[in-house]
Amino acid sequence: MAVYTHLGPEQVSEFLLLYDAGELISLKGIAEGVENSNYFVETTKSRFILTLYENRVDPADLPFFYALLKHLHDAGCKVPRFIVDRTGKWLHAIAGRPACLIEFLHGVSVTQPNAAQAEATGAALGQMHAALADFHPTRPNSLGVDAWRALASQCTSSGLNGISPGLSERIGTECDYLESHWPKSLPVGAIHADLFPDNVLMLGDQVTGLIDFYFACTDFCGYDLAVTHSAWCFNPEGSIFHPDLSDGLLTGYNRHFAMDVPTRDALSVFLRGACLRFLLTRCYDWINTPANAMVTRKDPLAYLRRLDFYSDKNNISAILG
Amino acid sequence: MAVYTHLGPEQVSEFLLLYDAGELISLKGIAEGVENSNYFVETTKSRFILTLYENRVDPADLPFFYALLKHLHDAGCKVPRFIVDRTGKWLHAIAGRPACLIEFLHGVSVTQPNAAQAEATGAALGQMHAALADFHPTRPNSLGVDAWRALASQCTSSGLNGISPGLSERIGTECDYLESHWPKSLPVGAIHADLFPDNVLMLGDQVTGLIDFYFACTDFCGYDLAVTHSAWCFNPEGSIFHPDLSDGLLTGYNRHFAMDVPTRDALSVFLRGACLRFLLTRCYDWINTPANAMVTRKDPLAYLRRLDFYSDKNNISAILG
Repeated sequence: MAVYTHLGPEQVSEFLLLYDAGELISLKGIAEGVENSNYFVETTKSRFILTLYENRVDPADLPFFYALLKHLHDAGCKVPRFIVDRTGKWLHAIAGRPACLIEFLHGVSVTQPNAAQAEATGAALGQMHAALADFHPTRPNSLGVDAWRALASQCTSSGLNGISPGLSERIGTECDYLESHWPKSLPVGAIHADLFPDNVLMLGDQVTGLIDFYFACTDFCGYDLAVTHSAWCFNPEGSIFHPDLSDGLLTGYNRHFAMDVPTRDALSVFLRGACLRFLLTRCYDWINTPANAMVTRKDPLAYLRRLDFYSDKNNISAILG
Repeated sequence: MAVYTHLGPEQVSEFLLLYDAGELISLKGIAEGVENSNYFVETTKSRFILTLYENRVDPADLPFFYALLKHLHDAGCKVPRFIVDRTGKWLHAIAGRPACLIEFLHGVSVTQPNAAQAEATGAALGQMHAALADFHPTRPNSLGVDAWRALASQCTSSGLNGISPGLSERIGTECDYLESHWPKSLPVGAIHADLFPDNVLMLGDQVTGLIDFYFACTDFCGYDLAVTHSAWCFNPEGSIFHPDLSDGLLTGYNRHFAMDVPTRDALSVFLRGACLRFLLTRCYDWINTPANAMVTRKDPLAYLRRLDFYSDKNNISAILG
């Protein structure tokens, strides 16, 4: 959520010469995205986001993200395109970092979604999954079920128990449960894997863009729905479940994408898995980020509360009917 | 250079209802300014900067800044206006902080200025000083000549000498010199006091806006010119003086503002004073900012080199003729 690499307008103007993008008239570093540097760029022709990839995004993954967004855009989904230069290239370097010029989309990320907004987001997610049925590039999910036990071990028992007494054992038991119940033979596809309200641009109750695909990977659609459900249907602390948002999200999703029966049967496992994934990465960041760092540490227990909620069969029945 | 207070679009939409400013369609936290939180706000009607004042700006000073920018705008100077709401108010609160909606101006801040850009900046500064002849509100310069010895003492001798051996004594001697040579009876006026290239928006060689007036105060015009000269006419390290930028800056300034003879005679003292002011505040920040903080520490010695340069009478003769 900061600008890591400072760019002057001279560098950006030179960069823009590669594109048929007009001349620079405004340049602002923006606090957006995770561990990338992003600039709002306005030219005499249009507006763009200029992204410099810092440490977290592996440049080798960029072709996957490019292909994914192009496929989605061509299928009519609302996502920002990577802009191609005069020769068709979409990847350059600036200040020694891989850099892409990306379409600027209007819209804001709501922090207190309503049911209509959840429904529109569910619909956009369903449209996305439908559109990706014929998308074939793949990228492993480095934060998927196979990674969770190792992530817990990197946090160490004492680290986890320092966050909340007994957390290490609880996570170990959850890993056991999820590893034994995780579906083995469902079809996989490309998923967003991080569709928090932050990553959905809206105007009123309409979705104007799904953004920040840098966790996108190949996994089960139902897991993507579960991540989105856990991100949208609670207060931030995870202590209050909002059934109206849940109903909206699922209604929107089901309208555009027909889940198969095995996926539907596995949803309760996916919901718990989604919680464990964010619980673990938040624990890892909590343990490895100094309390006084400028980066805001997100409370891991907000995801333990969600995990508790989804582990109760009565709640699952109420959600899925 | 970061966003300290996170705002959701719901808060900003509610805030905008106070104004005749249209409906929110984009909201981006921007990395700009010193210790304020700034948002780029686009509405169905226009674009704005929303500034939340954090710790560094005293809310009691805001009426001075408002009056200054209004006066300058009414006089035809290119500065961003504070936007007034439906009832004429320009100051509100959001998320518990004083907040103002400010005009958005096109233009970029050059990092490698050319002579024409320096001339345009000198002209804008001269126009500003001319326009302020009939501006009467005042604000003390808390970083002026009277503050320098105390600032040096807050840095401590060991702190200063840790930056560069002998620096403490050098600064003490410079304080002696400046306190005894600083003019006592020149007329004062409102000055920008921080007109670095960062704070000038340009399109090509034209100035489109002077911005970031939060150090503006009452002091000598010649001191403002000196601050600008020291900020524009060297490489960032202060090791290379650019005579073409100096000539451009002074030519532009003199075209729009007629310095009186005593001011002209005091310029060499003002130039040394400008260097000491930034040397001292950079020393203070250097000593009080951890090396691993996300805030970039600026090299104090870049201003010691400028001070050395301006302390040589031959250089002053070459600059001022």
